[in-house]
Amino acid sequence: MMADLLIRNARPFGGPPVDLFIRDGRFVAVTEARSAIEVDAAGQIALPGLVEAHTHLDKTLVGMDWFENRVGPSRSDRILADRKAKRELGIDARRQSARQIMQTLPYGVLNIRSHVDVDTEIGLANIEGVLQTREALRDLVDVQVVAFPQSGMLQRHGTLELMEAALRAGADIVGGIDPASIERDPVRHLDVIFALADRHGKPVDIHLHEPGDLGAFCLELILERVRALSLQGRVMVSHGYCLGMVDPARQHALIEALAAERIAVMTVGSPSAPALPLRLMRESGLVVASGSDGIQGTWEPWGNGDMLERAKFLAQRNGMTNDADLAETARICSFGGAEGIGLDDYGTAEGCFGDLVLVPARTLAEAVAQTPQKRTVIRRGRVLVRNGEPTGDLPAIE
Amino acid sequence: MMADLLIRNARPFGGPPVDLFIRDGRFVAVTEARSAIEVDAAGQIALPGLVEAHTHLDKTLVGMDWFENRVGPSRSDRILADRKAKRELGIDARRQSARQIMQTLPYGVLNIRSHVDVDTEIGLANIEGVLQTREALRDLVDVQVVAFPQSGMLQRHGTLELMEAALRAGADIVGGIDPASIERDPVRHLDVIFALADRHGKPVDIHLHEPGDLGAFCLELILERVRALSLQGRVMVSHGYCLGMVDPARQHALIEALAAERIAVMTVGSPSAPALPLRLMRESGLVVASGSDGIQGTWEPWGNGDMLERAKFLAQRNGMTNDADLAETARICSFGGAEGIGLDDYGTAEGCFGDLVLVPARTLAEAVAQTPQKRTVIRRGRVLVRNGEPTGDLPAIE
Repeated sequence: MMADLLIRNARPFGGPPVDLFIRDGRFVAVTEARSAIEVDAAGQIALPGLVEAHTHLDKTLVGMDWFENRVGPSRSDRILADRKAKRELGIDARRQSARQIMQTLPYGVLNIRSHVDVDTEIGLANIEGVLQTREALRDLVDVQVVAFPQSGMLQRHGTLELMEAALRAGADIVGGIDPASIERDPVRHLDVIFALADRHGKPVDIHLHEPGDLGAFCLELILERVRALSLQGRVMVSHGYCLGMVDPARQHALIEALAAERIAVMTVGSPSAPALPLRLMRESGLVVASGSDGIQGTWEPWGNGDMLERAKFLAQRNGMTNDADLAETARICSFGGAEGIGLDDYGTAEGCFGDLVLVPARTLAEAVAQTPQKRTVIRRGRVLVRNGEPTGDLPAIE
Repeated sequence: MMADLLIRNARPFGGPPVDLFIRDGRFVAVTEARSAIEVDAAGQIALPGLVEAHTHLDKTLVGMDWFENRVGPSRSDRILADRKAKRELGIDARRQSARQIMQTLPYGVLNIRSHVDVDTEIGLANIEGVLQTREALRDLVDVQVVAFPQSGMLQRHGTLELMEAALRAGADIVGGIDPASIERDPVRHLDVIFALADRHGKPVDIHLHEPGDLGAFCLELILERVRALSLQGRVMVSHGYCLGMVDPARQHALIEALAAERIAVMTVGSPSAPALPLRLMRESGLVVASGSDGIQGTWEPWGNGDMLERAKFLAQRNGMTNDADLAETARICSFGGAEGIGLDDYGTAEGCFGDLVLVPARTLAEAVAQTPQKRTVIRRGRVLVRNGEPTGDLPAIE
């Protein structure tokens, strides 16, 4: 039997200090402890486990040789370079996914949705590697696996069958990719992935970089399919740049329609991509999640996977500096992500899973703006990281 | 007599390893040491002292209570809030400027141009405070002081006389601010500040946030005055958002004209402001510098003043991920800044000042992308910071 955990003097989302009590892996009302371990939070800011709603665990080069990036600027240059690098660098998806997870754990990232490449060159190797890591690290973090046709599905025969196999092997979600600019046939691509999701009873997560009115048209096609298949609450649109590009009237109409069908939108707030209207999206009731996208890979050389820093980036991209706005971006990187990827029992209320990140900051806004590193990370009532230092319980990885 | 300093196995800008020798505060050919102190750089990347070409040393709240930001979104909301905060929070420009300088020293920031407020409420207090800090810390860092009419000059009678007094007190540069949107009279504002610069033989540095064609018109007015007064190489335009907003033909023409008159442009690469076309600007021969702008103040709650991280932000804002592009942004934050603010004898060539930052990274691109923290900082041949730890030589500050 695990000891109870009593966290004293923590401030959830920067609110008044409270004591939090975790028994059998869940928050419960503070009660007589059996043999309680105590953590003095000393007034630190408490957040439920941070949610990484969009990354690529199979693509990171963390811990490998420096990759000299000579890649051209277009998305297809990058997809080609990515596939070439996978071959030449021997990126081991099992090892690399474990490295990324262990790197982001001390930040308090306890829930991860990862897109994982499926294509006719690598087959299911990356899916299998990430699934092995998920199993090996299941006591530390929850991982959702999206079967992701990075190189296209209609474009590369055999990929659809591999997608099917990935779902049978344990992938949780059907991924899609730019139905027009990459797949060259938006209707057919969307028909194929929605049929796959319907057949397997799985959610959908679509990379949609399509710009402006082309992107808006693709969103309309997605909306039609969500309505037809009653997939409300089961679909996420990742990036959705078009929402930051179309005229205000169309922008408003699309956001309202997405909210009505409970389609979540994931944005990383990239400084070089169109900014999504975060405030309007949240006010419209749209579920907004965020993610790091790839970190330290062939696409981009930077990134650390800290979802509290991501909240800062979202604010910066949107020109938000107000404390209240920073609290909103922190919500996107926690509750927004949780709702977007469909987590149950998330939060610090009684009955929720006993996951917590303590951040040494005076206010929630300071936590976002300064992203202090010496955090304490608790999962299911077990202290995994204390003041930035992993506890002895953590497994060694390669 | 100071001991010579021999730095072995350093890689300037990521090039082949060399030994560097500093005697009497300057790089000289490697020669017989008198009593040389040796630093083993172990193949680290070497950069000359990083150049902060645009900050506000008198505005940072580093080390003070958390400022709850409830400020509205417009620039005039922020100027008002800034002036109110100065009164109510008692921001001591001498103390705060010292704190910021000491915070950024371990990053290797050895040259700083700071705008310092001059207005009818605070008078010369901030100028005097920053000048005191400059004197107190002169053995650590070079500081240039811009007399900056943050609240307007035409708009607030008496400011011009204070600007004159600031220059007599030791300010080095005449500052200007949005001649149209804040000063409401672009021609008269520019005439006044250029006359001031001409009368005192000082350079000019103008905050120009004016958008689109309004900003382009202001740039034309600046160009006319630089030609008329032969101020080539003596004027910097800070921000210059309009360069990222006008149509390509006008953009090209303006960039060529600025390059021809040797007017430098400073950009911070803010994620929420228009992106300047860095590649085109550099290819046109325009001098491009960068800066942190205010850090941890009433305007923005974040920022650490690391000019190597700033190189990363510039790349990110411009969608650059290539190693060669990252090297370019590192140049902007070193040589670009040095040329932009008019530093003499800058660099690692023989005869230059013996200033150096050693960064533990495998390549220059990795240094930019990952911004390692355990740097070694050398100024005029003296080791100030070793592997991220200040040496005993550094003065204590409040």
